[in-house]
Amino acid sequence: MRKEEIIETFKFRHATKEFNPNKKVKEDDFKFILETGRLSPSSIGIEPWKFLVIENPDLKDKLHKVTWGGKGQIPTASYFVIILARTIKDVKYDSQYIKKHMLDVKGFPPELLGKIQERYKSFQENDLHLLESERTIFDWSIKQTYIALANMMTAAAQIGIDSCPIEGFDYDAVHTILDEEGLLENGHLDISVMVTFGYRVKEPRPKTRKPFNEIVEWIK
Amino acid sequence: MRKEEIIETFKFRHATKEFNPNKKVKEDDFKFILETGRLSPSSIGIEPWKFLVIENPDLKDKLHKVTWGGKGQIPTASYFVIILARTIKDVKYDSQYIKKHMLDVKGFPPELLGKIQERYKSFQENDLHLLESERTIFDWSIKQTYIALANMMTAAAQIGIDSCPIEGFDYDAVHTILDEEGLLENGHLDISVMVTFGYRVKEPRPKTRKPFNEIVEWIK
Repeated sequence: MRKEEIIETFKFRHATKEFNPNKKVKEDDFKFILETGRLSPSSIGIEPWKFLVIENPDLKDKLHKVTWGGKGQIPTASYFVIILARTIKDVKYDSQYIKKHMLDVKGFPPELLGKIQERYKSFQENDLHLLESERTIFDWSIKQTYIALANMMTAAAQIGIDSCPIEGFDYDAVHTILDEEGLLENGHLDISVMVTFGYRVKEPRPKTRKPFNEIVEWIK
Repeated sequence: MRKEEIIETFKFRHATKEFNPNKKVKEDDFKFILETGRLSPSSIGIEPWKFLVIENPDLKDKLHKVTWGGKGQIPTASYFVIILARTIKDVKYDSQYIKKHMLDVKGFPPELLGKIQERYKSFQENDLHLLESERTIFDWSIKQTYIALANMMTAAAQIGIDSCPIEGFDYDAVHTILDEEGLLENGHLDISVMVTFGYRVKEPRPKTRKPFNEIVEWIK
């Protein structure tokens, strides 16, 4: 691909506040976007994410009411996704989830598991201090989901589809709503971030960013 | 761009364990990669990141010694980047950094700042409970930097350049090294994650991922 063309797609992408309700993203294009999320990398390869596509009108309405950051986006978007992240129950080094993932998804030989688990323990406990609290390891899990979030927004932009990530919601209220619907797998999943996809209705303000030399430092 | 071609670049990308030391990424291509990081979105648009390009051999060597996850990558990569994230000093709603950013980068009218700050306060305190500790708000800052991380790796892959993100390091040791070099701006910045770029020496194992239907759930 050409660099100039890629940079153009990065400039095209903006946090779209309102989508064109009459121009729906094709399901095939949306599945392509999700596929780039699926193919995203994550720490120790554990894919600690789930993508909920909220199409049920009642549920969407309930979520909309507690999401001030999605006032214009949720009702107009073609697709409304809640990205969930796996909690300590699944992402702590000695979880059943990781064990199963190593064997069934990554196909590691069972006799290596002990050694791998020891390495992950040291990584989580000693290197990054991830086990200070349930929240610190959950936040680590969320960090991985932001890789998938980024890739989905970038891939969308590369085929001309707009998006808006949404962090502006009442976390506890959204948690309660999803939990009541049984969507959090008994505490194995919790909310990371929301993201909406559609087509813009109007052109955004010009993009603002700090100059290159303020954010890049070369240590020679 | 074509969807098939984009998916191919996602399949091309893998966590490269060792780069070809004789094939250097062109500086121009590397600057393009950094540019996609610069153009990445972040919550409330505050760009809470800095990209340190480590070229000094002594510093690189010191960091290499405390980075088990970069044993093969750091000595062979064309470019070794440490992504820093802004700490509570800069990303708390009432920081000077945010105020300056709103005025100088985003060009908001000064009379709006009070209202915006109130909204950010409520967002950080009530909605996402980000101010539970210095770490929770710093982890939120890091989440944003993972968007830049993802975009840089994806953009690299789209022009045929390999990469490897690195979380496997002794956090405290890296912190001390960077702090002693005066690279953490007196506690306004701290370490998020490392990433290396170069060209692979050998083909990776086939990519493994959970099936689409295990990570996507449609709520109809």
